[in-house]
Amino acid sequence: MRATQVRLAERPEGEPGDSTYVFTHDEVPDPTDGELLLRVVYLSLDPYMRGRMSAAESYAAPLEVGDVLVGGTVAEVVSSRHPDYVAGDIVLSYSGWQTHAISDGRGLRRLDPSVVPISTALGVLGMPGFTAYAGLLEIGRPKPGETVVVAAATGPVGSAVGQIAKVRGARAVGIAGGPRKCRALLEELGFDAAVDHRSETFADDLAAAVPDGIDVYFENVGGEVTRQVLRHVNLYARMPVCGLVATYNATTAPAGPDRLPGFMGLVLRKSLTVRGFIQGEFTASHGQDFLREMSAWVADGSVRYLEDVVEGLENAPEAFRGLLAGRNFGKLLVRVGEDPTG
Amino acid sequence: MRATQVRLAERPEGEPGDSTYVFTHDEVPDPTDGELLLRVVYLSLDPYMRGRMSAAESYAAPLEVGDVLVGGTVAEVVSSRHPDYVAGDIVLSYSGWQTHAISDGRGLRRLDPSVVPISTALGVLGMPGFTAYAGLLEIGRPKPGETVVVAAATGPVGSAVGQIAKVRGARAVGIAGGPRKCRALLEELGFDAAVDHRSETFADDLAAAVPDGIDVYFENVGGEVTRQVLRHVNLYARMPVCGLVATYNATTAPAGPDRLPGFMGLVLRKSLTVRGFIQGEFTASHGQDFLREMSAWVADGSVRYLEDVVEGLENAPEAFRGLLAGRNFGKLLVRVGEDPTG
Repeated sequence: MRATQVRLAERPEGEPGDSTYVFTHDEVPDPTDGELLLRVVYLSLDPYMRGRMSAAESYAAPLEVGDVLVGGTVAEVVSSRHPDYVAGDIVLSYSGWQTHAISDGRGLRRLDPSVVPISTALGVLGMPGFTAYAGLLEIGRPKPGETVVVAAATGPVGSAVGQIAKVRGARAVGIAGGPRKCRALLEELGFDAAVDHRSETFADDLAAAVPDGIDVYFENVGGEVTRQVLRHVNLYARMPVCGLVATYNATTAPAGPDRLPGFMGLVLRKSLTVRGFIQGEFTASHGQDFLREMSAWVADGSVRYLEDVVEGLENAPEAFRGLLAGRNFGKLLVRVGEDPTG
Repeated sequence: MRATQVRLAERPEGEPGDSTYVFTHDEVPDPTDGELLLRVVYLSLDPYMRGRMSAAESYAAPLEVGDVLVGGTVAEVVSSRHPDYVAGDIVLSYSGWQTHAISDGRGLRRLDPSVVPISTALGVLGMPGFTAYAGLLEIGRPKPGETVVVAAATGPVGSAVGQIAKVRGARAVGIAGGPRKCRALLEELGFDAAVDHRSETFADDLAAAVPDGIDVYFENVGGEVTRQVLRHVNLYARMPVCGLVATYNATTAPAGPDRLPGFMGLVLRKSLTVRGFIQGEFTASHGQDFLREMSAWVADGSVRYLEDVVEGLENAPEAFRGLLAGRNFGKLLVRVGEDPTG
């Protein structure tokens, strides 16, 4: 039987195109002693993957040309010669853009399909949810009554940020692209206000949505949205920075004027806290609390989630382009193989 | 008898010039019940004063045209109808750019001339010293063996930052303008390394001075110095931001490219903490600890200070221009009147 892999064919300049990827079809391998064979069910697509495609320094080593693209996955154990797993187990793994993978068991986490849908391990109960939880609670530290603003707010990080803010008694304002996403923020995700950054009246709409200013801006976008948000930050506002998806495809420094001195002046005048982070920093200290609290919030409906599932690994490249352009609607997943629980 | 006041004649565009100021000579006032008359001995000149001259929003309300320029002062009580003070007392006050002032006692602190020179209340044991202490220890949080970098390092904030870093077991690297200041950093202030930002080899010299990278950059300058420093920041580096003197005279946003996206990318890749602050935020929580610890460090020689004393209020405008251009050498003071303790 043949497996399918998606590999980095060449480093993209700007937006990844078809020539970025090459599909290969190696034989499905057999596990040796201590190993297990995984069949990928869901592949998570996330903005950080764009960074791995570039040779430039990032917070993780870049991929080499020819490597299988990395990514979080939910997989089914096909066959096991590992003492801790049997065929049919469902696990969270980091198998990447491929249909099958061999694992030695390291880094796997067994999932219980009877509790929550297994796909949530890649979203609200996975890395994006933990990014929201750790960044908001450890860096943003919203107090009851404060205003929390997040962009890409229907995405898996943004939607969790706003809803956790609500759980903590803060006011949640979401920024998203288009009226459909904004409606979902209000009607499905319980945000207090939603602002469409594609609207011509975005600047005024945002101002109207934050009458008491902004105490926490959870930064996952960058660019023009951030510029408008910064006009409203309050004294002592906090700005966790977990991503800058608006700039990931940029190939040159943007034209002037140079906005850095003005930004630093704002940091000074408003005594702002700006803190970059990668969720892994907080895994040891907050990972268990996250799983316990977030599972409870999902179970009792305090935190809801949206998923955007694309069928088939062959559609992953186009879906990833859409992710960087904000065309997904909720947590973007690729269904690589049949979901045995669904 | 006539007093002298220096008032804001017009808001400066760029560097303050002679037309920024007007000298007036009002009658020395008499204190009424509950008041006291102060004679200013030392006036502190500090970069924040530039912000007060502008109408633009800052962390404090701007001065109005016609107002006496503000500033910290050490003064002698000339006559008192206030129960807590008698003639001859020396106090820390906020009397501004003038020879005499009436006070109702609020905000005064009595100084003991037998312990340390009274001028230190405006420098190492005053607002600049506290800015260094609170920003370095509460935001920078240097650990033993870490590298702390500060610019304007012979100035009252920078010199205290480096020396407190040394007390805490960190490595102190100072940036200053010109070989004379750099020599003082090494020979008088005990820095581990000194780098001249006016040298043509500044970038290389800085790289050589921070072989283990930078863990804390205490930002009080901005501009090109900061750009070079940012090339060397380590993962999880902290950046307390207390001033941006290099940009205070700027009248327009600098030409491109726009460096803000690159800076935010660095914040993300390195998990940086950037935190603006004004020392007053920490007065209630850390003011007493500061006076106790810093007085002890000054007394035992762990922390030394440099003063640059200009004679006569009439020379304050030129001295202030020099401050913004980095021409002072140590804490810049104007001796407005005779020092009764000196």
